[in-house]
Amino acid sequence: MFKKILIANRGEIAVRVIRACRELGIKTVAIYSEADKESLHVYMADEAICIGPPPASQSYLNIPNIISAALVTNAEAIHPGYGFLAESARFAEICQDHGIVFIGPKKEVIENLGDKARAKKLMKEAGVPLLPGSEGLIEDEKQALKVAKEIGFPVLIKATAGGGGKGMRVSYSPEELVKNIRLAKMEAEKNFGNPGVYIEKFIEEPRHVEIQILGDQYGNIISLGERDCTIQRRYQKLIEESPSPVVNNRIREAMSRAAIRGAYKVGYVGPGTFEFLLDKDGKFYFMEVNTRIQVEHTVTEMVTGIDLVKWQILIAAGEKLDLKDVTLRGHAIECRINAEDPDNNFSPSIGKIEKYIPPGGPFVRIDTHIYEGYEMVPFYDSLLAKVITWGKDREEAIIRMRRALNEFIVRGLKTTIPLHLKILENSSFIKGDYSTNFLARRILVED
Amino acid sequence: MFKKILIANRGEIAVRVIRACRELGIKTVAIYSEADKESLHVYMADEAICIGPPPASQSYLNIPNIISAALVTNAEAIHPGYGFLAESARFAEICQDHGIVFIGPKKEVIENLGDKARAKKLMKEAGVPLLPGSEGLIEDEKQALKVAKEIGFPVLIKATAGGGGKGMRVSYSPEELVKNIRLAKMEAEKNFGNPGVYIEKFIEEPRHVEIQILGDQYGNIISLGERDCTIQRRYQKLIEESPSPVVNNRIREAMSRAAIRGAYKVGYVGPGTFEFLLDKDGKFYFMEVNTRIQVEHTVTEMVTGIDLVKWQILIAAGEKLDLKDVTLRGHAIECRINAEDPDNNFSPSIGKIEKYIPPGGPFVRIDTHIYEGYEMVPFYDSLLAKVITWGKDREEAIIRMRRALNEFIVRGLKTTIPLHLKILENSSFIKGDYSTNFLARRILVED
Repeated sequence: MFKKILIANRGEIAVRVIRACRELGIKTVAIYSEADKESLHVYMADEAICIGPPPASQSYLNIPNIISAALVTNAEAIHPGYGFLAESARFAEICQDHGIVFIGPKKEVIENLGDKARAKKLMKEAGVPLLPGSEGLIEDEKQALKVAKEIGFPVLIKATAGGGGKGMRVSYSPEELVKNIRLAKMEAEKNFGNPGVYIEKFIEEPRHVEIQILGDQYGNIISLGERDCTIQRRYQKLIEESPSPVVNNRIREAMSRAAIRGAYKVGYVGPGTFEFLLDKDGKFYFMEVNTRIQVEHTVTEMVTGIDLVKWQILIAAGEKLDLKDVTLRGHAIECRINAEDPDNNFSPSIGKIEKYIPPGGPFVRIDTHIYEGYEMVPFYDSLLAKVITWGKDREEAIIRMRRALNEFIVRGLKTTIPLHLKILENSSFIKGDYSTNFLARRILVED
Repeated sequence: MFKKILIANRGEIAVRVIRACRELGIKTVAIYSEADKESLHVYMADEAICIGPPPASQSYLNIPNIISAALVTNAEAIHPGYGFLAESARFAEICQDHGIVFIGPKKEVIENLGDKARAKKLMKEAGVPLLPGSEGLIEDEKQALKVAKEIGFPVLIKATAGGGGKGMRVSYSPEELVKNIRLAKMEAEKNFGNPGVYIEKFIEEPRHVEIQILGDQYGNIISLGERDCTIQRRYQKLIEESPSPVVNNRIREAMSRAAIRGAYKVGYVGPGTFEFLLDKDGKFYFMEVNTRIQVEHTVTEMVTGIDLVKWQILIAAGEKLDLKDVTLRGHAIECRINAEDPDNNFSPSIGKIEKYIPPGGPFVRIDTHIYEGYEMVPFYDSLLAKVITWGKDREEAIIRMRRALNEFIVRGLKTTIPLHLKILENSSFIKGDYSTNFLARRILVED
């Protein structure tokens, strides 16, 4: 087992990883930017090293500084968290070159799955259901029109190097498609340094459902069930739950089998997430694999009783998976509370937290890096705290989440708590009857 | 269902009851003493009424003031929490006389079980195993000596009106017994206003194991498994867990059957706790029934997934029990963190909480009424917060509790966190090999 791990991240996920390390008896090294010296992860780690000023490019994305911090503290492994360098094949490779274990899949696996077009090809070979679409990248308008004719409008143009909804454009007609292909390539080049785009059938009113898998170094891969992350704003997840209110045993098993087949295909090691779109007929289509621990891993932990981050570290250290009979018990929901002003176009809210009283009591979990007196800085994402509730069923989990958010006191900043409460009281949400358009259609237009 | 409940308590249990009410859609009325106006339960409740100054006799035990508060706010029911009036048959009766539902068993049940000698008689009739001892109260020294001869020394003298270890004396010889009977009667008269004492066989090195039962108004009574509360200091529980490390299925089932038989015998309604002593041979003996929700109900909640306080209120409102297949999953531990100085004879530590950062993350639960800036007052018990951890097994729950307590920051007061950490690192504790003498023998003498 590792004696010391460096956590190449900040915020709540750095705190989460420190907790897992503590429980495994592993010493921790925090890194932090000059803007983050008061963050909880800095206080909680056994050692902490400043690796540069904000913005992230100078610190949390500064590979030489991070590697130096690991070498100088004798950290044997680096946990990348999510975001920043978590899905950088290059970072994984550099770690390896320095004899440091990168806690994540092998660089080849990250590369294969990070390139969307290549990932689709591999998944197709593995028998994972794909959205009808172009085989590989679209060369020109002519090819685009041919593909669109085959699969039928509407179609979606996606950047192969994109993610998080960036570089995506829907087209309902040939004219629109011709225009959008050109724009999409330009945007992709500009945003990701790679102009490659591909085309997929556009599913209207889909649900976002993902399968959490866990694989060890010996070819054992299991599914820990699904998470429903349909409640999004501009492709950013706001609320996640497990199980999904629209996934029955048949769909769960079929999706899990598909994800496990896909994971075998690429030799996946560690926790990974296979994201699918689920249509109204219960058919599902592969979207992408996230080769890291996810923000919403917490809901899977609550229903399975399994500590995913501990397992991620154990697996990286060569431990064999010995999880038998994974069963989902009850229902868990996570609300991502952001320091944003929902009444002012979700602009980030920065400043000092004057009063902070987190919710507590039965079946409420809080993951956060903040505390009373902490000052939110403007350089990073606006995630303030994750509130997770568990209930014997979805109804109880929702009621408990409302109770928890109502008792949550954060003063000095604007937060998205009122928006979450609005969603939790919406009858379509309560019935489980909604799609990824929910927020735009049912909540924000009402304002 | 009730529309409004008054909570006749303070501290963390008042907060706990408010949470349950919130989730049930019931409005809450907090009562508070002049010393408690900054307590979290006052802020959290929908209404709050000051019912007098400290000490408790003038406020939390002041029945006329409490009843007036309920009447003036139109509260239909009163939840008594634990301590204060929770086991007062008189209070239950007065509530009834005013048309207010007392959330607890009927006054006759409280009376029958509150009188230790009467409770023993009833339990014997119900076939619940008792410690060998006197039938009813001891009249004089002669009778005491006769009983002691029959059951063998050592014997324990207990006050029939006592509790929490008060009024108990062990005797190892006839001479000691004669002396102690006299003292015990005098103490009982002085402390409880009732000189009645009885004699029981004294079990050396026992474990304290209790069964949580839940009964509805229609004669359905179930067991929710056991809690092990062996780690005590002067009969005050410090650490509780479920399941017990020394209770196997056979003992669990036998104890549960005994508790359910006893509960049927008295017509028990609501959550109740049957406390047993468990000896080294796996034999168990009835001690007493607590006719209220207990501090340590949390660990039962964590392993069963059942919200006991919600069920307590539902049952009082006439709901039928529909809990099928109660199964224990994993292991839960509770540490009662007190504002006391373990290095200074556990003297209460009062004053302002300068910094407060509670533990969080996976499978950690906090029940507390405090927050940063709160001032601990000297008038009540010193419970600061309950920290509960869950793990897939006892080992993980212990490791997680150590992690949680290590990250718990409370500045401005002395707390018992260091004592808890010492216990959690003790090899006998880790092995599960200890008795109620553990703290006196293995921890405190080491200082």
